[in-house]
Amino acid sequence: MGRTSDAREKILASAHSLLESRGYAGMGVADVCKAAGVAKGSFYYFFESKEALALAVVEQQWAGQFAVWSEILESAEAPLDRLHRLFEATENTLRAGRRSCGAISGCLFGNLTLELSNQTEAIRLRLQEIFDAQVNLVHEVVAEARDRGNAHVADTREAARSIVAQLEGHIMFVKLYNDIQRLDAMWANCLALLGARGELAA
Amino acid sequence: MGRTSDAREKILASAHSLLESRGYAGMGVADVCKAAGVAKGSFYYFFESKEALALAVVEQQWAGQFAVWSEILESAEAPLDRLHRLFEATENTLRAGRRSCGAISGCLFGNLTLELSNQTEAIRLRLQEIFDAQVNLVHEVVAEARDRGNAHVADTREAARSIVAQLEGHIMFVKLYNDIQRLDAMWANCLALLGARGELAA
Repeated sequence: MGRTSDAREKILASAHSLLESRGYAGMGVADVCKAAGVAKGSFYYFFESKEALALAVVEQQWAGQFAVWSEILESAEAPLDRLHRLFEATENTLRAGRRSCGAISGCLFGNLTLELSNQTEAIRLRLQEIFDAQVNLVHEVVAEARDRGNAHVADTREAARSIVAQLEGHIMFVKLYNDIQRLDAMWANCLALLGARGELAA
Repeated sequence: MGRTSDAREKILASAHSLLESRGYAGMGVADVCKAAGVAKGSFYYFFESKEALALAVVEQQWAGQFAVWSEILESAEAPLDRLHRLFEATENTLRAGRRSCGAISGCLFGNLTLELSNQTEAIRLRLQEIFDAQVNLVHEVVAEARDRGNAHVADTREAARSIVAQLEGHIMFVKLYNDIQRLDAMWANCLALLGARGELAA
């Protein structure tokens, strides 16, 4: 890899880390350049603004997360098993984040949503699309579970929205209390929400 | 009311509004003073720091919300009716906020949690106490519903935590999509979570 692409990757990595620790308002372009060891002139070669940088961080994070969610939720397992694996993967990601930086940084998309919804329109619209995509992925599994008689919900799309909302709410509490065990009850509650209590023996 | 208490109230009101529109990092003491029409010297007579000001806004907001939650959740109605009224009150509050300022500002506590959990320890600890108190209020209702045979959950405290988490998650989406109808399915999902589907005719 040449110098050029190294610099872009370094800027993205520093921006990601600063977004998680300080939020969008607390992330200055000068701080990002300093942390990345890159001159300000180079920064503007890659990104036209702080907003463009934040959007690039969001894209990179979503590309990775989408790959994981798709792999899990579109596998050949039974639908509720796939959903359960998604919850476990989320917990493992939060655990790994805490090991590497001490605190739990939570969900980048949720954090930006609450910080920026009424400030930065471009980021807000992209976050809408990302959460729509998450709901779509979960919805397919919920619909399949219902077709197989494993879930009993009237409106599968609303149920999928509630599962993603519950996930975000619990991740917020995990971050606030810096305590991953807060996630323990989430799966049982998800099954209740799907009218699927007792469906899974394991 | 004398001039002194007017100034404090004006500072609090301006700070509340700036916290909602710009977040903690985007709220400068100078902006607050300007919006409140108060000299900076007066500001420091009332608040020793920006953090102290934000804590005072949180206290004021929680005092009002606690009064509403207690009045509703400790009334003489059937427990699930009380819980339903809490959801309706939350929706009405969001609706009123949008009428007065155009955008939906969401939940002040949730916003601050995601912006500040790993930055400002004093505010983080106070937010923990506030969410603990919310869970306690909801928990009493859930436990009573279970005792009466209207709810069927193994762990009433975990169910209460999930209800509050789901509320926060849905409020986040209401804010992101600027669309209050996102709350429509929340009550049905809450009943499912409590194993209480079909309990309420109304």
